[in-house]
Amino acid sequence: MNEYFKFYMPTKVCFGVGIAAEITEYVEGKNVLIVCDPFLYQSGAAKKIGDRLEGRHVAYFSEIEPNPCCESVDKAANAARQIKADCIIGMGGGSALDVSKITACLVTNEGSIYDYYAGGKRVLGERKAALICIPTTAGTGSEVTNVGVFTNQQTGIKMPFVTDAFWADYAVIDPELTYTLPPAVTAATGMDAFCHAIEAYWNKESQPMCDMLAMEAMRLILNHIKTAYDEPCNAEARSAMLQASLMAGVAFSQTRTTGIHAISFPLTSEFGASHGIACAITLPAFMKLSCEQRADKMKRLTAYLGYDCVESFAAAIERLMESMNMPVRLRQIGVKSSDLEHIAKVGLEASIIQLTPAVMNEETVCRLLKSIL
Amino acid sequence: MNEYFKFYMPTKVCFGVGIAAEITEYVEGKNVLIVCDPFLYQSGAAKKIGDRLEGRHVAYFSEIEPNPCCESVDKAANAARQIKADCIIGMGGGSALDVSKITACLVTNEGSIYDYYAGGKRVLGERKAALICIPTTAGTGSEVTNVGVFTNQQTGIKMPFVTDAFWADYAVIDPELTYTLPPAVTAATGMDAFCHAIEAYWNKESQPMCDMLAMEAMRLILNHIKTAYDEPCNAEARSAMLQASLMAGVAFSQTRTTGIHAISFPLTSEFGASHGIACAITLPAFMKLSCEQRADKMKRLTAYLGYDCVESFAAAIERLMESMNMPVRLRQIGVKSSDLEHIAKVGLEASIIQLTPAVMNEETVCRLLKSIL
Repeated sequence: MNEYFKFYMPTKVCFGVGIAAEITEYVEGKNVLIVCDPFLYQSGAAKKIGDRLEGRHVAYFSEIEPNPCCESVDKAANAARQIKADCIIGMGGGSALDVSKITACLVTNEGSIYDYYAGGKRVLGERKAALICIPTTAGTGSEVTNVGVFTNQQTGIKMPFVTDAFWADYAVIDPELTYTLPPAVTAATGMDAFCHAIEAYWNKESQPMCDMLAMEAMRLILNHIKTAYDEPCNAEARSAMLQASLMAGVAFSQTRTTGIHAISFPLTSEFGASHGIACAITLPAFMKLSCEQRADKMKRLTAYLGYDCVESFAAAIERLMESMNMPVRLRQIGVKSSDLEHIAKVGLEASIIQLTPAVMNEETVCRLLKSIL
Repeated sequence: MNEYFKFYMPTKVCFGVGIAAEITEYVEGKNVLIVCDPFLYQSGAAKKIGDRLEGRHVAYFSEIEPNPCCESVDKAANAARQIKADCIIGMGGGSALDVSKITACLVTNEGSIYDYYAGGKRVLGERKAALICIPTTAGTGSEVTNVGVFTNQQTGIKMPFVTDAFWADYAVIDPELTYTLPPAVTAATGMDAFCHAIEAYWNKESQPMCDMLAMEAMRLILNHIKTAYDEPCNAEARSAMLQASLMAGVAFSQTRTTGIHAISFPLTSEFGASHGIACAITLPAFMKLSCEQRADKMKRLTAYLGYDCVESFAAAIERLMESMNMPVRLRQIGVKSSDLEHIAKVGLEASIIQLTPAVMNEETVCRLLKSIL
């Protein structure tokens, strides 16, 4: 029984097939900057949203790379200031949504993101521009969190920025926008959402409301990810995956993540693995470890999901990943035995690793990494 | 699969044994009105909270009856205006919390509650006073809803008032405050919370996030209500009950309730049954009816809770109520056969009755009432 917990998630969630077309219902303001992934700009998907905003000045910013760097953020902020944006719409995966969040703040907070984050000396003031997040992957959950993750181009260090100003006013979640996701992206982002859910569930900061959302997110992903991978336009599977990433997002917005995400940072920045792959690759190993301090909870979870024990659950996850052509061994993404110690060290620098329900130190993390080399 | 849904619950929830003693962490403002049940004022429980607010002007308002009337609301508003309250703390069951919500609005919205509600012509403006709700029963869920229910003393009509201004800034939820609840109140308020959960779950406006919270709320209540009834100071049971009423509150804050609550209105206003009893008494009958349009969902629920079928689930609820000396037949609260038609008519006037997953008309409601006379 959890004795202490908090819950705060003030974003208005709107979920429905086709609701992105009703974007005018959510937009307040006259000058709108749509911050989106380059692909969504090129494909015309972002323009489809912008074209609905008749009578408003609409501009686009799409110079966003995966794991967005602070320099891109500053460019987006300048674009927003130029049009005196009073509404920012983020559209895309986690990268675009994260950039949209900080951009909405920087319109009226002068200077660079570096002034406010990772050693910057200024305190971010109130966000005055409206902020609407429209996810186009079923993974990030960024539309319902107060976190943005940015990379310092000079140091290569990827760090989360957490502030209440990042809670979007609206999360507009439309499964139709995910029908064009390629299978590999469906798999990687879907397994990222699964990690959010299980890391919220076994988290040292776990709490009963989030436990329920996390359990259901995992059930939905296990039941639907392979169908979404095989049949990109399967409406039921896409809807289920987006509901799952929403619930997982709400869950980890309260608890934060754990070792899986901590270790993913060096796997992404130094070995180029996509965020979803960098997370999922250590998932089965962390699952086996979770029983160290969460045996009862894991028993309840495996029963809910229909597995005998954590071992068979972890094995099923590994088979599922293989069935979607995802790597399940570190060497498949270029990691060598001699890299393990360094990966462990960098991972241990992320404070979230201590929310893992097991002892986390160089020895235990190296042993875990070795087991999946 | 639910195709469309919304979720919005901006209140900051803080849950923990003993946290009410840390009330200063949540209070902003200098002039505080504590709106509480008379019992909490007399017992000194409210003053214990007020005494922590050193350096602030603290006043108390406790002229609140069950099913509070608009005249009491206006008195509370005057008390708040007199001290120029910039923070209202509601403390108690649903009645006190509901009065605290509207009082916080009326400090800066002049006139009477009648000006804004039930035919009133004015629109309630922004709430400027801070609002903190501290529940002392595990039932109402009012601390996490945007609804207040008030009674017009002249007409005797009980009507809900729904506005975003009623979302509290903080819900401070402390199981210790429920240790003094008498067994009969524990039973009635706990079964009210159970009704919130099941009515959110089978609601025509049900949605996946709330379904999970509702399922868990029901599980917790079934596992702990009898212990809380038998052993008022059992910390685990009290904590579980308050977690359950929180989750049920969040669930029905999104979906609203259904026939059980609709029928409870005349049972309370005309037959004097407490709100919890007036709800629970029709619960088993509505459960049997729910399969009409929710057969699959009820199957999932009974499996989660460990019952074979809805019939055995309903029978178990009835036995549980009897074990806590709650009435399970309408005649036990003074209803006669000749009253049924009138009860059905009044219940059918509440629009929420049409959120029941079964055909609701005079014929079907009378048949239901007759089955539990």
